[in-house]
Formats: sequence, structure tokens, C-alpha cells
Amino acid sequence: MIDCDIHVNIGDLDEFVGYIDPAQRDWFRAQGPGLGMPGYDFTHPGGWFRADADPGRHLLPGSSLEAVQAQVLDTYDVAAGILNSDDTILASLMCNPYRGAALASAWNDWVSERWLDGDARLRATMVVAAQDPLAAAAEIRRVAADDRFVGVLLPGGSERPYGEPRYLPILQAAHECGLPLVVHTGGDGMGLAAPSGGAGKPSFYIEWHTLGSACSVMSHLVSLICHGSFDRFPGLRALFIEGGVAWLPGIMWRLDTNWRGLRDDVPWVRRLPSEVVRESVRFSTQPLEHTDGHDELLWEMLAAVGAPEILVFSSDYPHWDFDDPSFMLKRLPAAWREAVMHRNAAELFGARLGLVHV
Amino acid sequence: MIDCDIHVNIGDLDEFVGYIDPAQRDWFRAQGPGLGMPGYDFTHPGGWFRADADPGRHLLPGSSLEAVQAQVLDTYDVAAGILNSDDTILASLMCNPYRGAALASAWNDWVSERWLDGDARLRATMVVAAQDPLAAAAEIRRVAADDRFVGVLLPGGSERPYGEPRYLPILQAAHECGLPLVVHTGGDGMGLAAPSGGAGKPSFYIEWHTLGSACSVMSHLVSLICHGSFDRFPGLRALFIEGGVAWLPGIMWRLDTNWRGLRDDVPWVRRLPSEVVRESVRFSTQPLEHTDGHDELLWEMLAAVGAPEILVFSSDYPHWDFDDPSFMLKRLPAAWREAVMHRNAAELFGARLGLVHV
Repeated sequence: MIDCDIHVNIGDLDEFVGYIDPAQRDWFRAQGPGLGMPGYDFTHPGGWFRADADPGRHLLPGSSLEAVQAQVLDTYDVAAGILNSDDTILASLMCNPYRGAALASAWNDWVSERWLDGDARLRATMVVAAQDPLAAAAEIRRVAADDRFVGVLLPGGSERPYGEPRYLPILQAAHECGLPLVVHTGGDGMGLAAPSGGAGKPSFYIEWHTLGSACSVMSHLVSLICHGSFDRFPGLRALFIEGGVAWLPGIMWRLDTNWRGLRDDVPWVRRLPSEVVRESVRFSTQPLEHTDGHDELLWEMLAAVGAPEILVFSSDYPHWDFDDPSFMLKRLPAAWREAVMHRNAAELFGARLGLVHV
Repeated sequence: MIDCDIHVNIGDLDEFVGYIDPAQRDWFRAQGPGLGMPGYDFTHPGGWFRADADPGRHLLPGSSLEAVQAQVLDTYDVAAGILNSDDTILASLMCNPYRGAALASAWNDWVSERWLDGDARLRATMVVAAQDPLAAAAEIRRVAADDRFVGVLLPGGSERPYGEPRYLPILQAAHECGLPLVVHTGGDGMGLAAPSGGAGKPSFYIEWHTLGSACSVMSHLVSLICHGSFDRFPGLRALFIEGGVAWLPGIMWRLDTNWRGLRDDVPWVRRLPSEVVRESVRFSTQPLEHTDGHDELLWEMLAAVGAPEILVFSSDYPHWDFDDPSFMLKRLPAAWREAVMHRNAAELFGARLGLVHV
């Protein structure tokens, strides 16, 4: 089984700050645990994390390698677990691009030494600061030398959707290094990011969690397709994490229809958008929509847009809405299990996963 | 048949300006045809309108009563056609709230005299300037005295989603007058409105048409539910026009799931969100997603969230993506036709439609 979304957090702030460029270290230390990143307007009313993932000692859940091993890797016989930054994804949304870049670099070095060195089953996506695309591209090339980094992580929250030409250096570097773009919801509406949802900032966490994240993922998906990103960089792949999937048929039907009617708006898009998705885009399962007895309908909907091939499993450990792999195994159609739990991720991330049977 | 979305445009600017408050009339006249409203960042590459709806003589399509009669009312044997403002919906997004209010009032008086007086089959929604909710509420009470106005029109583009308490005076006035809220996509990302889509302004009309409008409708829907608007004003109804419908099951599954997990974020929401939708919310059909051979799946998806009862027919005349009622009749499941083409709208708008068999 491959888990495409395990979150890690900083446990020892002093240790982490030691990874930051010395010229900027004092500033970050002075910010405390928030490290100067933009704050969240919305937080879960009862806490972001699984209660049983709290390692105690005032540490953040997800900050203990032993807990990740015990609660994910060992329990579920995980062949490869991909670590994604939790809060430091917000480096892209800091007004000061140099702070953002320093924080991203520090996180990449820290996760490599403190996590990847600790368990051979672990891999990670790299954090980059998207507000300075040239610097982000340089960071991608630097970090890609460590072949345990398997993707370029970008937050759902953004100033503009990722198909925009300003982000081309990031796409180009990812493509050059054979790394997929990994767009994970988060930061939507925070810091530099546009308000989430598209009708102005919502009021509640429940709205933000229902829609803020889904709409930003939809928008990046449609943007990358409409800018022809996957034709511009043949072989480039994208993985969207935690934006949901049940909206996908509706949005793809609409985009396919519009592409037929509006091709002169984007003449460089030469293929039906839904074909591009089948070939180049993947979606993580968590949080797979609960359907109140309509799971058969959900599988039909997803099959209409390319499932099971477009889906990869993710648990979102240690967050409150963690999807248990053993529950997911039972829920998925039997014929989809191997593809969703293992094969599709192995194919997406390729040799960097280091799995024999890729 | 009831058509819930026929757009009318201003043909004779001088005549229209005559309906504006004399103290503001000169300013509006000086702005020319745009009437000082925010401009659109995205326009259809080949034009907004059906080519055959152009009345010539440099008039805008939708500005001729005769054309609306010939191309919609007579051709399709329309029992009631509901006129919605086209551009003046942007009154809500003008930085100057007094200009917005003056423009809205003028439009309401103009549509009453120049359109509703001209054909007994016509009804209209009223334009209000949402950036000044108290003034908008006063306008609702003023215009509602003319019982040919059947709803309160708000644009998809907004500063904040419409469940926000600042908009309570609008909801209260609509409720008091027995009028549904009619949220029509448009203005998303323009003027005062937040960027559409939730990941920053998109680049192309095709993105905006695919997602900008869908995301704002989703956000207003989720906002109204999460603020408990339909419980606060029992009997209040909302109609969402032109945001699509195929995303609805995915978003409602996600919202229902989140409501179960996050009720302490919105403790006043006492019913499952999807139940609230079935009871109080309706969606217009146009542009009903084309599914590349998956129409049976689409009907199943819509049935899972309450179709056919939640759907009302709209043509969107005279726009380029007009849905032909005779085509829609053939496409819809036979058992849904009467409900979608007539009954649901008759029930939603009630006595103000003036139809005998309501």
C-alpha cells in the first residue's frame, strides 16, 4: 500500500530553526511556532488532529517518527509513505518572498535529515515558495538531487491559478526533474492567496473545508488544462490532494462542453480536457465523499472520468478526517483496490519510490 | 412551459436614462452604454449572444420585445417568461453604493413599463444593489408592490457569500414580500466582487464560464445553508441560475458529511444540508451539462439530491449557450418533463405568476 499524504509537523522549533539560512534565522526564531507564516482565518472547532495522534509533551501530532511508524507505516503495512508539509505549505503565501524561500529550503533539508533518513519507507514532496517562481525553480533543482523527494508541493491557496505563465519556471523545473506537481489544499484564502470559494471569504471552517479547498483545486486543474501545460511539458503529471473527487464528472463535462464551444479562446488546447485528465492528472482519495448509501453511484461517476486509474490512496494522517486504509479497502470496488491503493501511485511517482515492483 | 431565465438588455440608452433619479442622471449618461458599471475581465471570444437574436440597428440582443415574443414566448408556447437583468446585475458590484441603488431602481421601473406592460406572459426579477443591504431592502419593499416581480435578483459575484449577516435585511425583505432569492451567475470577480474560482483570477473566458460561475453559486448555496438562513426565515426559497447542477451531489455529500462532523461550528443548522436543499432551494437547468453519452448517470446523480423537484427550466435567451426548450423536452426523462418545464417553477413563484393552474 502507498499512502500519498502523511503530514509531518515541526516538533522541536529550535532544531528546525537551525536549518534556516543563518542570515534569516533570528527573524524566524522571533516569530515563534507560527514562523511568520500567515494565520488561518478558519480552524476546526475541535482541533485539526486525530486525538489519538497527540504525542503529548506539547508536541504537535505528526511530529514524531515513532508515532508515524506505529500509527501508519507498521499498522497498515505501508510500502511507501509520502510526507507532505503541513503548515509550511504556507511559505508560498508569505508577503516576503525571501522569507518564504528560506522557510521552504529549511523544511526540505529538515525533512530529509529528520525524517527520510529515519525510515526507508518514507518519501517526501518538496516545499517551494511559489510567489518567486525563479527561486522556486532553483530550489526544485537543488532538492531533486535527493531522489527521495518525489514531487513539488504547491498549496491550493494562490494569487493566480497555476497554469498562469508566471509559474512556468516551476513547471519547467518539475518537468526537467521528472517530478509531478502536487497541489494540496491549504492556505486557500490566507496571506497572499485570493479568497477561497469565489464569492468572497466564507464565515466558517465548515464552509472552507467543504468548498474553499474544492474550488481552489478545481481552479488549478482547469487552469493547467486551459493553458495547455501538459502539452507544453509532455509527460508532466499533476496530483491533486484533498480537494474531493465527486465534483469531477460535473466539472469535466462542463469543461469538455465549453472546450468544444470555445476553442478559439484557448486554441493551443488540442485535446478534449477529460482526455488530458485521464492521461496526466491524478487525485487523492481522502476525504472520499460519503454518499449516504450512494456508493455505487459514486463509483459510476468516477468511472465516467477515468477511475480507477485517476485515483491514488491518501490517509491525511494525522488530521481529524483521516481515512483509514483498511476501511477504504473494504469500501472500494474489489476491482479497483490494487490500482487505487498501490499501482497508480507507483506509476505516478516512478523509480523515486524505490519499490521493486513498480 | 415556464422559462425562468430570459435576459433583457437596454436598447435605447436615452430612454433608459430617463428612468434614473434626475440628480444622478447626467453622471450615468456621461458613462455611455456601460452606465459606469465595472467592466468584464472575460468575454466570449465570439460574442455573448445568439447570432440570430441580433435585432440589428446597433441594438443589443434581448432589447426587443418583438424578438423575445417571436424567438421565445410564441415559438415555445411559454406560459410565463421571467425576465432577468443582463448587465445591470452589476449594480451590486459598483464601488459607489448610491450609483448602484439608482441604477437598480431605474432598471426595475424601466422593465416594468417597457417590458411587463407589453406582454401579459412576462414577469421579472428585481435588481437590487447588495452593497447597501438596507437600501436594497427598501427597494425590495417598493418594487414588490408590483406583483409582476417574482424574485430578488442577486449576482454570483459578491464581496462575501450571501449567508453573511450583512445581507440579512435583503433576506428579511424578500421573505416578508414572499419573494425567492434568485442568485444568477454574473459579475463573478468583477468590481467589488472577490476573484472567481477561489485560486485567484483565472486567465480565460472558458475558465470563468466553466468554474467562476459554478464556484460562486456553490459558495452562496453553502453559505446560506451554514448560516441557517432558511430556518431563520421559514418559507424563504432560493433559486440558483446558470451555475450548473452536475457538481451538486458531490458538494452536498461533502457538506452533509462535514455537517455531521462539524456541527459545533454551526450549531444552529439543525437539519441535514441536503434536506434543506430539497425543501428550499431550486436550480435552473441551463447550461445543463452535456455528458458525452452519460445522461442516464446524470439523471441518477440529480435524483440523488432531489431531482426532478429541485430543477426548473431556463433557456438563457439570448445568450450564445441558449438551451432550446424543445431539445430539453426530448433530453429530460419523460417522468421529469412536467415538473421541470412547468410545475416546479409554478410552485416556486406562486401566485405572482398569475397562472390558473398553479
